[in-house]
Amino acid sequence: MKMNPEDKLLKLGILLPQPPQPKGSYTSCTRAGNLVYVSGQGPAIEGIPKYVGKVGQDLTQEEGYESARICGINLLAQLKSYLGTLDKIIKIVNLRGYVNSAVDFYGQSAVIDGASDLMKSIFGEETGIHSRCAIGVSNLPGNISTEIEMIVEVAD
Amino acid sequence: MKMNPEDKLLKLGILLPQPPQPKGSYTSCTRAGNLVYVSGQGPAIEGIPKYVGKVGQDLTQEEGYESARICGINLLAQLKSYLGTLDKIIKIVNLRGYVNSAVDFYGQSAVIDGASDLMKSIFGEETGIHSRCAIGVSNLPGNISTEIEMIVEVAD
Amino acid sequence: MKMNPEDKLLKLGILLPQPPQPKGSYTSCTRAGNLVYVSGQGPAIEGIPKYVGKVGQDLTQEEGYESARICGINLLAQLKSYLGTLDKIIKIVNLRGYVNSAVDFYGQSAVIDGASDLMKSIFGEETGIHSRCAIGVSNLPGNISTEIEMIVEVAD
Repeated sequence: MKMNPEDKLLKLGILLPQPPQPKGSYTSCTRAGNLVYVSGQGPAIEGIPKYVGKVGQDLTQEEGYESARICGINLLAQLKSYLGTLDKIIKIVNLRGYVNSAVDFYGQSAVIDGASDLMKSIFGEETGIHSRCAIGVSNLPGNISTEIEMIVEVAD
Repeated sequence: MKMNPEDKLLKLGILLPQPPQPKGSYTSCTRAGNLVYVSGQGPAIEGIPKYVGKVGQDLTQEEGYESARICGINLLAQLKSYLGTLDKIIKIVNLRGYVNSAVDFYGQSAVIDGASDLMKSIFGEETGIHSRCAIGVSNLPGNISTEIEMIVEVAD
Repeated sequence: MKMNPEDKLLKLGILLPQPPQPKGSYTSCTRAGNLVYVSGQGPAIEGIPKYVGKVGQDLTQEEGYESARICGINLLAQLKSYLGTLDKIIKIVNLRGYVNSAVDFYGQSAVIDGASDLMKSIFGEETGIHSRCAIGVSNLPGNISTEIEMIVEVAD
């Protein structure tokens, strides 16, 4: 039997936090038609970035993966707050991940898998798998290690 | 009484310029369904970039904010040219801002607020507030200080 | 008489390759409504990146253009595999190009034209021209020289 995402979160022991407040003149989610755009999320836990600095220098690739996973949890927390329930999501459409990277670090794909793997484990293969772009950048706001934005499709 | 965006521009004394020409094999706006995608805009005024170089090194954060505001004005100039009137816009959906950043500059959110604040002041809180991503990058075309792209929803 | 894209590919002697496999926990194309999102593609030929390193340092701008053109061919290979035929595409909506850039390289627009010119030559001016963003970044996965993602509109 297929589990819905809310049950799956429970089963995995993931408690969605209060979603982080936007750090500027914007909002966390907007909707146009059946698409919901979620603003770029960092790896904050209770308002404090868990990972700062460059992956491949200040952080290992594995810590980068964990940083991306927290971004993913915050994306879901924003969607839960906006939609009321994750069960309205019918497709994780697109995810874009930015990795604060050391000059010689090229493992951005493996880092962003931290968020992608989360989406698959919560929503299942069919709904959770998404198109994606993983990019290395020189700087992120507040020197966070990863930032991820997402587009989902919701039911009418 | 709610002002429409064209009246609001007048009231704020903002005269939209001729929109900048694309600097390559692309066009400034495309539409799919009710979404209009606007190509990345720089801080050009009458064809000349007003701000070049890195924020946090060649420019202050406040100048970066002003650079982002000019990008915002150019985004609106493109939309006005494409749609005929900004009054057709029913939602500023998503904005993505890239900041040409010094190695130790982390104020990308405050910089991109230059465009976000503009959207709110022209379209009002409900229509103008958007989801967003702010990113620091090592280079932008022509060494401009900020580049911003946007997606808006238009009426049928 | 207007040529369809499949005929145009033949006429230009472009044989679409097997599309590259995703290098992580994602898929190459997703659809929401009439939009298809294609994951970021690099300049791989038969699984091997043709261009690695920084444009303006390890590569010339002209090689960067060629790198972007290969990204474009891979984007089309993904779409062909996903849709069965490119003839279902009614609009190239939006393209976002990232250029692995030397510190003093500012020709990102000219580089990404490698993909944009391809889209125009395959789909014609009306369907092929798109909105775009060209960005310089410090790192890309596997040190590839360019990465490009795209959104297209398909017929019902």
